Amino acid sequence: MQLIDVRIPLRWRDLDAYDHVNNGQFLTFIEEARIQWFASLDGSWRSAVAEPVLAAANVNFRRSIGYPAVLRVLLTCARVGTTSLTVDHRMIDAEDEDILYSDGHSVIVWVSPVTGRPVRLPDVVRQAATGANVPT
Amino acid sequence: MQLIDVRIPLRWRDLDAYDHVNNGQFLTFIEEARIQWFASLDGSWRSAVAEPVLAAANVNFRRSIGYPAVLRVLLTCARVGTTSLTVDHRMIDAEDEDILYSDGHSVIVWVSPVTGRPVRLPDVVRQAATGANVPT
Amino acid sequence: MQLIDVRIPLRWRDLDAYDHVNNGQFLTFIEEARIQWFASLDGSWRSAVAEPVLAAANVNFRRSIGYPAVLRVLLTCARVGTTSLTVDHRMIDAEDEDILYSDGHSVIVWVSPVTGRPVRLPDVVRQAATGANVPT
Amino acid sequence: MQLIDVRIPLRWRDLDAYDHVNNGQFLTFIEEARIQWFASLDGSWRSAVAEPVLAAANVNFRRSIGYPAVLRVLLTCARVGTTSLTVDHRMIDAEDEDILYSDGHSVIVWVSPVTGRPVRLPDVVRQAATGANVPT
Repeated sequence: MQLIDVRIPLRWRDLDAYDHVNNGQFLTFIEEARIQWFASLDGSWRSAVAEPVLAAANVNFRRSIGYPAVLRVLLTCARVGTTSLTVDHRMIDAEDEDILYSDGHSVIVWVSPVTGRPVRLPDVVRQAATGANVPT
Repeated sequence: MQLIDVRIPLRWRDLDAYDHVNNGQFLTFIEEARIQWFASLDGSWRSAVAEPVLAAANVNFRRSIGYPAVLRVLLTCARVGTTSLTVDHRMIDAEDEDILYSDGHSVIVWVSPVTGRPVRLPDVVRQAATGANVPT
Repeated sequence: MQLIDVRIPLRWRDLDAYDHVNNGQFLTFIEEARIQWFASLDGSWRSAVAEPVLAAANVNFRRSIGYPAVLRVLLTCARVGTTSLTVDHRMIDAEDEDILYSDGHSVIVWVSPVTGRPVRLPDVVRQAATGANVPT
Repeated sequence: MQLIDVRIPLRWRDLDAYDHVNNGQFLTFIEEARIQWFASLDGSWRSAVAEPVLAAANVNFRRSIGYPAVLRVLLTCARVGTTSLTVDHRMIDAEDEDILYSDGHSVIVWVSPVTGRPVRLPDVVRQAATGANVPT
C-alpha cells in the first residue's frame, strides 16, 4: 500500500565536507515525506491521547547523492500493528527513477503523550495504511 | 572492542517543533563519534585508494531527548570484514549512564575513490578495530 | 539589477522548538539562491585564482514563518565593487508576494584561494551583476 | 555589560562542501549563547505575555573556521531599549582568543504572543542586561 510519493529539491547545504548529501539528511527527507503523508490524512493523526513517535529507522545508503538534484521519496506501508506502523522508504532520482539512492524502513509507534505508553493506532491512520475506506 | 566514547553537548537547534531532539540529529551525533575515532587513529584511514563510505545505519530511538543535556556516544566494533566494519553505537546521558537514548549499528565500507568498488580495510583501521597492536 | 528569483519549499525540519522557521535557516535559503545564481552564470565564477567568500550578512526578520509554505528568495545587486558584490535579499511567500518574511543584504568578496587576499571580480560575475552583455 | 561567554565544540557536520563551517551555523552558535544566557536568568524571560523574537542579525565573517575547533561565543549588551535589546556578539577560538572568527550584533524584541506587538522588556532581562541588582 503506497502512502505517499513526494518530491524534494536538494539544497546546497545538504552536502557535507565530502561534497555528498550528508547521511543525517536522509532521515530529514524521510521525515518530510512522513509529515506530508500525515498532513494528507482526512482526520486526526495526532491528538491529546495519541501521538506518533519514531521508534526505529533503518537506512541503506545505495548511492551517494550530488548537488543539484531533485529526490523522490516513496513511503509504502509494510505492516500495520495494533499500536505501530512499519513503513518502507525508497529514495530515487526524480529525473531517472532507476537511480536508487536509498531504501530501508522505519517503525512508528503511537503513544499517549501523558503516559508515554503505546496506544491503538488512530482510525484514520489505520484506514489510510491498509487502504480501507474511511467510513462516513 | 570499544572504539571511542565521546561527549557531545546538545545545542538548542537540535530540537525540532516537537521540542525533542530531532531524529536526523542522531546520525549527526554518531557521525561525530565516528569522525573523532578516525581522527584518533595513528595512520591513514582515508587515502587516494581507500575511503570510508557509510553503507547502512540502524537506529533505535529508545527515549526522547530534551534540552539541555550532554550526550555520550559510544562506538564498539561488532564485526571486522575484509572490506567493511560493523559498528555498534549507543547514546547515553553523560550525567546518568543508565539513561539509554538510542542504540543500533552502522556498516562502513572502504571503497576506491576511483572505481567506487570495495577495497581492503586500511591496516590502521583493522588494527584499531580488532585491538591488534600496531607493528612498529 | 535582479540576479535571481528562486522558489524554496520549506521542510518540517526548518522549524525549531518555537514552531517557526529557525533564524539560521534564513541564511541557508539565501545561500541556496546565491548558489543557484552562481550556477546560472555562463562562465567561471570560481577558479584556482578567485573564489567567493561571504564577508557579511545582515538579515531582518520581518515575520515568522510557519510550515508548510513555499518561499521565494529574490537577490538583487546593490553595488558592484572592484573585488566585492553587495547583494540585497528579500524572502516572500510564493503564494502571496505581499507577505515579506525577511529582507537584508550580504557582501561577497572574491579572494585568492592561495593568499586569501581580495582579487578582481571574475568578468562573468561583474557582467551578470551589472547587466552588461557578455562579449562573445 | 557582558552577558555570557559560552564554549561550543564544533561538529563535523558544521562544515559545508567548501570544508569550512557553513555561514548559517554562525547564527546557530549565537542562538546557543543567547538561549544559555536566557536560561541563566533568575526569573521569567518568556511568559504568556512577553516572548523574545529575533528582529535582526548582522554577522561579519572575519575568518573561515576549520574542523575540529572549540569556539567561544561572547555576548555583550550594546543597548537596552523599552521593548528591545541590542546584543553584540563575538566568536573567537577557545584555544587562542586572538583569533576572531566573527563579530556583529542582533536585535531582540519582546512581543506579546497574543497580539504580536512589542511589550516592555521583562524586569529580569532589563536588570541582567544593565547589570542592575535584582530587587528582592
